[in-house]
Amino acid sequence: MGIRAGVIGYTGYSGAELVSLLAGHPHLSLCLLDHRKAGDAAGNAAPAPVAAGTVRSMEHVPWKAGVVAGQSLDLVFTATPPEISLDIVPEILDQGAKVIDLSGAFRLPSGEQYQRWYHAEHSRPELLPEAVYGLPELHRDAIRKARLVANPGCYPTAAIAALWPLVRQNLVDRKTGIICDAKSGVSGAGKKPSPKTHFVQVADNFSAYAILEHRHVAEILNQAGIDEQELSFTAHLLPIPRGILATLYMRLKEPGMLDQIQQVYRDAYSDSPFIRLYPAGTQPELSKVNHTNFCDIHCSLGPDGRRLVVISCIDNLVKGAAGQAVQNMNLMFGLDETAGLLK
Amino acid sequence: MGIRAGVIGYTGYSGAELVSLLAGHPHLSLCLLDHRKAGDAAGNAAPAPVAAGTVRSMEHVPWKAGVVAGQSLDLVFTATPPEISLDIVPEILDQGAKVIDLSGAFRLPSGEQYQRWYHAEHSRPELLPEAVYGLPELHRDAIRKARLVANPGCYPTAAIAALWPLVRQNLVDRKTGIICDAKSGVSGAGKKPSPKTHFVQVADNFSAYAILEHRHVAEILNQAGIDEQELSFTAHLLPIPRGILATLYMRLKEPGMLDQIQQVYRDAYSDSPFIRLYPAGTQPELSKVNHTNFCDIHCSLGPDGRRLVVISCIDNLVKGAAGQAVQNMNLMFGLDETAGLLK
Amino acid sequence: MGIRAGVIGYTGYSGAELVSLLAGHPHLSLCLLDHRKAGDAAGNAAPAPVAAGTVRSMEHVPWKAGVVAGQSLDLVFTATPPEISLDIVPEILDQGAKVIDLSGAFRLPSGEQYQRWYHAEHSRPELLPEAVYGLPELHRDAIRKARLVANPGCYPTAAIAALWPLVRQNLVDRKTGIICDAKSGVSGAGKKPSPKTHFVQVADNFSAYAILEHRHVAEILNQAGIDEQELSFTAHLLPIPRGILATLYMRLKEPGMLDQIQQVYRDAYSDSPFIRLYPAGTQPELSKVNHTNFCDIHCSLGPDGRRLVVISCIDNLVKGAAGQAVQNMNLMFGLDETAGLLK
Amino acid sequence: MGIRAGVIGYTGYSGAELVSLLAGHPHLSLCLLDHRKAGDAAGNAAPAPVAAGTVRSMEHVPWKAGVVAGQSLDLVFTATPPEISLDIVPEILDQGAKVIDLSGAFRLPSGEQYQRWYHAEHSRPELLPEAVYGLPELHRDAIRKARLVANPGCYPTAAIAALWPLVRQNLVDRKTGIICDAKSGVSGAGKKPSPKTHFVQVADNFSAYAILEHRHVAEILNQAGIDEQELSFTAHLLPIPRGILATLYMRLKEPGMLDQIQQVYRDAYSDSPFIRLYPAGTQPELSKVNHTNFCDIHCSLGPDGRRLVVISCIDNLVKGAAGQAVQNMNLMFGLDETAGLLK
Repeated sequence: MGIRAGVIGYTGYSGAELVSLLAGHPHLSLCLLDHRKAGDAAGNAAPAPVAAGTVRSMEHVPWKAGVVAGQSLDLVFTATPPEISLDIVPEILDQGAKVIDLSGAFRLPSGEQYQRWYHAEHSRPELLPEAVYGLPELHRDAIRKARLVANPGCYPTAAIAALWPLVRQNLVDRKTGIICDAKSGVSGAGKKPSPKTHFVQVADNFSAYAILEHRHVAEILNQAGIDEQELSFTAHLLPIPRGILATLYMRLKEPGMLDQIQQVYRDAYSDSPFIRLYPAGTQPELSKVNHTNFCDIHCSLGPDGRRLVVISCIDNLVKGAAGQAVQNMNLMFGLDETAGLLK
Repeated sequence: MGIRAGVIGYTGYSGAELVSLLAGHPHLSLCLLDHRKAGDAAGNAAPAPVAAGTVRSMEHVPWKAGVVAGQSLDLVFTATPPEISLDIVPEILDQGAKVIDLSGAFRLPSGEQYQRWYHAEHSRPELLPEAVYGLPELHRDAIRKARLVANPGCYPTAAIAALWPLVRQNLVDRKTGIICDAKSGVSGAGKKPSPKTHFVQVADNFSAYAILEHRHVAEILNQAGIDEQELSFTAHLLPIPRGILATLYMRLKEPGMLDQIQQVYRDAYSDSPFIRLYPAGTQPELSKVNHTNFCDIHCSLGPDGRRLVVISCIDNLVKGAAGQAVQNMNLMFGLDETAGLLK
Repeated sequence: MGIRAGVIGYTGYSGAELVSLLAGHPHLSLCLLDHRKAGDAAGNAAPAPVAAGTVRSMEHVPWKAGVVAGQSLDLVFTATPPEISLDIVPEILDQGAKVIDLSGAFRLPSGEQYQRWYHAEHSRPELLPEAVYGLPELHRDAIRKARLVANPGCYPTAAIAALWPLVRQNLVDRKTGIICDAKSGVSGAGKKPSPKTHFVQVADNFSAYAILEHRHVAEILNQAGIDEQELSFTAHLLPIPRGILATLYMRLKEPGMLDQIQQVYRDAYSDSPFIRLYPAGTQPELSKVNHTNFCDIHCSLGPDGRRLVVISCIDNLVKGAAGQAVQNMNLMFGLDETAGLLK
Repeated sequence: MGIRAGVIGYTGYSGAELVSLLAGHPHLSLCLLDHRKAGDAAGNAAPAPVAAGTVRSMEHVPWKAGVVAGQSLDLVFTATPPEISLDIVPEILDQGAKVIDLSGAFRLPSGEQYQRWYHAEHSRPELLPEAVYGLPELHRDAIRKARLVANPGCYPTAAIAALWPLVRQNLVDRKTGIICDAKSGVSGAGKKPSPKTHFVQVADNFSAYAILEHRHVAEILNQAGIDEQELSFTAHLLPIPRGILATLYMRLKEPGMLDQIQQVYRDAYSDSPFIRLYPAGTQPELSKVNHTNFCDIHCSLGPDGRRLVVISCIDNLVKGAAGQAVQNMNLMFGLDETAGLLK
């Protein structure tokens, strides 16, 4: 049992998924840190069924000063709202543990950018330079050495995976505009009940939201290396519990062949076990990625060789949150990148 | 335009369904009464799309003392919680209008029964003797003359329609027990957001609740004429917006033939346009009744001629609430019973 | 009872929706024409529940030579596959009735275009010049006088309604490309069972198909007046029974204000009762249009005043098929355009 | 790598679930046997996404004479229709491997019973005496020594788990009748497309089928030890991909307390790690068991101490099929009963 890890905020959707993944991880002992403000109110306090025979149970520890050192934790996952992460992440680091933060608190490079997109002051901007953006496919080496990893947002994970290989090779005519039309399952909206997540409102329905103004856009711009006026991003709410499918439209600078485009992705991700490419003549779909840590990419090219459609599929709770966090942990502790994430 | 009707509580699911039905009714002018406590908080205040050309709109009137008489209303529908109905129904009656109350406030015959099943005191027990239980298939004549109609609950509508023809003919061996295993869509749980109606909680799920203790049982016992210890009633939550399918199990006193049982129903409902019988060899399903005012009944008999399964299907918001209210209105004002309810 | 109308192909989703709408139409008598190849195999032959009391039923007539004249039909709706429409539409016209064809057989202006997009020869190209494309918002006057109306496809209805007002005013920078990212409910895929429409395949899933190669693109190009290489169209399958939401992205030639864009739509559709505009600050969704004949349009403009997102919502079976067919019938017979289509 | 196992019929829902579970099993090497009639037609031959980095793949071997011995297989799972199992199970046994058959071919004790419930002759009745009914909670020791295990049906697993502890203690008044009202997700209907499993037919719908005549009843009668006229069983189709919730109603011979009933279950299943009991005051639901091998049981008792409602929840593809098969394999090969089945 190499790593001793804690989770704060385990009652939300991402936190619960994380606990479920970590429970099956081969190199880990786990404890749940009970933090009053970490979203526990959203938890379902209903008593669960109890095994007649013997089944393992989880260790719970109340959050209090010094608990991270007291429990000898090597790592803490914070699946908390950004304002709570800003409070507790520094405390954890001070006690000598590493942190993977699943909130947006440490994803942007400066306090100014945080202020602009989150409409709140960043109380710990001095930590931002050392925080590593936890997308292993882009920052594998930096993650290995990181003390603080900012786990990416779900929409950005899908969008950046599709954009980065082409943009860094300067293949895209960015001036004509890049479109990211993204669709997400309802768990992306969080566990707190509201009229917008009522079953009767969502079932048999489909809606668009945050049109041209989602705060996740900031991560995409920073990581994919494009300018704000070059990207049009729209989010939609799918009547399913989980999954993100993002359809990206762009124009190539020079006419190309589908095969060349696919090779760009194969080269970019040759050492990335969780990126998969759809062969030509297939149809991308969420069921292939849900409940897995894969990001599946599908390319189509118009007969003009210029109009390119790239579709990126992830499970928003796994590759878009908890699975990616485990992938980051594996890198930070020298384990196989896929440990606990493949059957 | 014969009838002038008002609706209080038009933002809940039943109330909104009622407004939608009444908007298409041929003999009616309608006004919506804005009552602050009638559930408007649950309403979606988001601005709706506006027609580029001309489309009719609704008349809104604030609720205040004397408004029923002031607006010359012949009838008011109260789609309000029982505690609000207890307050406003007497006020409306005093101003000379008839009332169809969609809550449980006036469905039971005595204040004692109300106290027992609703765990609250009934503030107006003197009105209970004149309130008519608004199930037209049982009380058509009394409804025609009623000033106050208590519109039935959704589960009771389905259960009573299945039980009443057999029980009144004394065909059922009640001592061995009658089972009503009922399944309802989520709109039956109301519009208020809660962890239990969150999309992610309900989707891909199915649960049982109120096992042997649903307060709707009281209506079934009273109307079908059976004793409490003779009925086992369980409710279940279907992951669909609307519809109730109730599966009833009972034992016949004397062995019979399927054909005889079906004839009992045909006789009981020969003048009831909204009761339909499934022929033998068919499969009952909600899609046939949803968005209609029909109650569909299906019978199966075991090879022993004794074990009988009766399945009853309704749309909980139409025959189980708003449509039945319109059917009651039609009777109270001498219109065709189906006016505004059939295409 | 002014119009006497027949329907061929009433067992498919569009045909059944049409019969349901026509059954409630105030100026119509209806008969169903039983045509062996019109899709009846897909029909559910299971016996339906039968009313205990009296409810209206439908008139059925076998299709045979001369039946249209024999039944004195003024109009026949053909909800048939295009290859069957090519056979029977001329026969109907020859017997003196008007036709509204819901297939793709008569939507394109030439046999050459049909050959290219439908990969089959058009057997009656001589009828194409007189066929009117049945989008009332664009061709109201021509429809009034038409003998043969080609009812539009569902995706084209949504896309053209969004594009046409801006393109005809020459406001769009077409060279940078127009994107139409369209999402449809499963009824759009037809009633024939296949692995792609199996419940377990579709539920909890979301997929893209016909990327850059849907045959409905031809209608959009023709009607909106744009060139093939200017449009990128992708279709997606939503896990819901009905509804289309299309998200369109384009760049304005000159920077504008949201208000100006909305005014362009208001002007274009000032006499169109079924087009509705979302006010600013709202969120477009399918539940507002499903089971109605409305087409709802929502506009968003980026801070640069150039990046425009237009979202168009329809019910694919109503405004995208059967409702639009009724709207066309109303125009062809001098009725109010909304007859039978509004509550 | 202790066990070398093969799977025939891996393209159906149960077979695919089995392969997914076995792929994560710690003591196993697996090969897929390609048998032309085993349901491959139902398989989706569409090319799947391919990992950019390295991910394990499966070994495929064509089915042919002698392949079981040739591949040195210790065990073969047959997830095939009963008529195919009757053909190939004897062949496998003859080659020296053990068999877990997921069909109904070997679940009943005699050829006569098979003939009656499956309406077909049993070609290998001589194998029935040695076939062990693979419900570990009832037959753990016999399964450990078995050469041929008949993996139970999904409905019977749920029903027997609920009935057996009470019936064997003679606590139930069987003469008044036992009701099993069962509801299943759509994967229970198999992968073959049909009008009954079309998404548009199932979504927003709920139906009853096989009322008082499901062939799974035979297993329940045999295993729970009750007579045919004592049980009324009805199946219903839930609009969800997976899960069975069965609500059972019965009458106790002597009035009892809820606590006593729960103790009966605790005693019966004290060494059964996959049976869980709901505490009083809870609400049973499918989401707690789906994607797990647990069977959750919930009890409610009426105030008379006689009317008992027992609710049993399983995932039809896991505890109702593939997971139970793995549990049986674990027992047959001396492994921990939970190996590969718990996180």
